[in-house]
Amino acid sequence: MGIENTSVVFRTILTVNLCGLYNWVSMRQWKTVSIIGVGLIGGSIGLALQRRGLAERVVGIGRRETSLDAALRCGAVTEATTDLGAGVADAELVVACTPVTRIVQHIRLAASACPSGTLLTDAGSTKGSIVEALTRQLKPGVAFVGSHPLAGSEKIGPESARDDLFDGRVVVVTPTAAAPTDWVSAIVEFWSSLGASVIQMTPEDHDRAVAATSHVPHVVSAALAAATDPGLLNLVAGGWLDTTRVASGDPQLWLQILRDNRPHVLKSLDKFAKVLNSFRDSIHEDDASRILELLQAGKQCRDAVGN
Amino acid sequence: MGIENTSVVFRTILTVNLCGLYNWVSMRQWKTVSIIGVGLIGGSIGLALQRRGLAERVVGIGRRETSLDAALRCGAVTEATTDLGAGVADAELVVACTPVTRIVQHIRLAASACPSGTLLTDAGSTKGSIVEALTRQLKPGVAFVGSHPLAGSEKIGPESARDDLFDGRVVVVTPTAAAPTDWVSAIVEFWSSLGASVIQMTPEDHDRAVAATSHVPHVVSAALAAATDPGLLNLVAGGWLDTTRVASGDPQLWLQILRDNRPHVLKSLDKFAKVLNSFRDSIHEDDASRILELLQAGKQCRDAVGN
Repeated sequence: MGIENTSVVFRTILTVNLCGLYNWVSMRQWKTVSIIGVGLIGGSIGLALQRRGLAERVVGIGRRETSLDAALRCGAVTEATTDLGAGVADAELVVACTPVTRIVQHIRLAASACPSGTLLTDAGSTKGSIVEALTRQLKPGVAFVGSHPLAGSEKIGPESARDDLFDGRVVVVTPTAAAPTDWVSAIVEFWSSLGASVIQMTPEDHDRAVAATSHVPHVVSAALAAATDPGLLNLVAGGWLDTTRVASGDPQLWLQILRDNRPHVLKSLDKFAKVLNSFRDSIHEDDASRILELLQAGKQCRDAVGN
Repeated sequence: MGIENTSVVFRTILTVNLCGLYNWVSMRQWKTVSIIGVGLIGGSIGLALQRRGLAERVVGIGRRETSLDAALRCGAVTEATTDLGAGVADAELVVACTPVTRIVQHIRLAASACPSGTLLTDAGSTKGSIVEALTRQLKPGVAFVGSHPLAGSEKIGPESARDDLFDGRVVVVTPTAAAPTDWVSAIVEFWSSLGASVIQMTPEDHDRAVAATSHVPHVVSAALAAATDPGLLNLVAGGWLDTTRVASGDPQLWLQILRDNRPHVLKSLDKFAKVLNSFRDSIHEDDASRILELLQAGKQCRDAVGN
C-alpha cells in the first residue's frame, strides 16, 4: 500500500506563511477530487481547490439534487452526482464531509468503488469511533486517514461555502500507527495546500481536546439560549448574541457529535460546571476577591487567543 | 421642577426609521452636554451628538488626562476637564458613563454644581440601587432619570468609541413614579436622537431582565474561558471564540455589576444551571430525544433574534 506508484503532478505556487512572508511551494495537483457532502465544509474545499488551481475536476456527491445544484451554481464543484460509486470512480482523493454518523458508511462505500491508490479522508468533528472503524477494513491499496478542519460554524449548506474558509485555520489530522507515513503526509499536504495549519494528534487526544474547545461550548451556548425567557429577547445585546451564536447550529448534527463523543463531553462539562459553581458560590457569598479572580482567569485565557 | 422654562432649541433632521423609511423629525439641539467618563459609551455619545449636529459643546469629564486627551484626539468631546464641578457648570444635559459603583457619587456632585434645569442621566448596567439612591436627594430644579444603553462590549476606552454605536440599539430608560414626565420624555428623546430604540421599564424589571440577557452570559462566558486548559488554546475555533468573547471585558467593571445585581444574577444563574444539568443528564443517559429537544430549544430562541 502506498502512493509511490501513482502519477502525481505538483504545481509550484506562491503562498503566504504565518509570518506574512511569501514562499514558493510545490503543491500536489489533483486530476479528480471527490467530495461526499457539499455543505459548508465540502463546498469550501471545492472552492479552495479551484481558486488555487489544485484540481482539474471536483466531483460533488450528495443525496439531494437541490444541494448539488446549489454547489454547481456557486462553483464549489465542477460536476455532481447522487451516485457515490460513480462519483469516486476516477478519484485520486475522496473527502467525506457528511455528518459524523454517516462517515464510516460513506468511506467504506467509496473505498469499494474507487481506484487503487486513492487517498481517503474526512472532515468529521469526532475522530475516535470513525478512525477505529476505518483503520483495518478497507481494500488493499486504499487507506483512510482521519481529519477534522476546525472551521465549522452555525452556517450550513453550499451557499455558505467560502474559498478562504481554511486560510490560517487549524486542521487536526489523526493518523494511527497503522497508517502508512506517505499517506499521512499526503493528507497533511492536502490541507496545507488549502491554507490550513495542520496539527497531528491521536484520535483519542483529538476527541478529548475538542470536547473542551468545541462540544462543551456548544452545549453551554445552547443551554444559555434555551434558558432565556423569550419575552426578554428584545433586551439582548452583544454579550448574549456572541455567547449564544453557535446555538443556531444544526441540532441533528450536534446531537450526533455529542453522542459520539459522550465520555469526553461529560468529563469536560463537569469541569465547566465546577468552575461555574465556584463562580456562583463566590457571588452568593459576595466574595469580591474570588469573583475577581475568576473574571481575571477567564479574561486571561480569552485574551491569550485574540479575536 | 420642569424644563418648560429653559430655552430649548430643536433641529429638524432627516432620519431613517426601522422600516427603512425616511422621516423629518425635530430633535433637541443642546448647547452643552457634559459626559462624565469618556470610555466606549461616553465617547460614542459624544461622537454621535456631533455627527448628528445635536450639540454645540461636548464636555468630557474624567479622572485621567490620558483618557481625556484620547477623547479629544478622536473628536469624541470638544473640551475636557478633570474638574467635575467646572465640567457641568454650563450643562443642559449630564450623562454619567462611569462604572456602576461611581455613578451615584458622580450624579450627586454634578447635581450640586450644574445650573437649575439640567437633565441628569447615566449609562449604568444596573439600575435598582442607582435610581433608588438618586430619586429624592437632588437639588430643586434638577432631576435624575436612569438609563442603560444596551451597547457595551468587551472593548473599552475612547479609542473604541463609534458615532453609530447606538444606531438601532436598545436603550432602557427606568423612570420612577417620582420622575416628572417632561424630564422622562426629554431623556427618551435624547437617546432616540442618537439612533436608539428606547424601552421604558421599572429599575427592578430592568435588573431582573439584564441578569438573564447580559450578566449571566458574562459569567458563563468567563467560566467557559477559565475552564479551558491553556494547552488546548491552539485548538479553539469559531464556537469557543464567540462563546467566550465577552470574557475579555474589564474584570473590575464586571465585578461591580455582578455584586450590584446579586439577587437577580443568582436567580438567573440557577435557572441556567438547571437547563445545563438537564442537558448533562440527557447526554449521560444517552437520551437522544431529550438532547435534541434541548438543542432545538436553544436554536429556536437564538434564531428568533438573528445576528
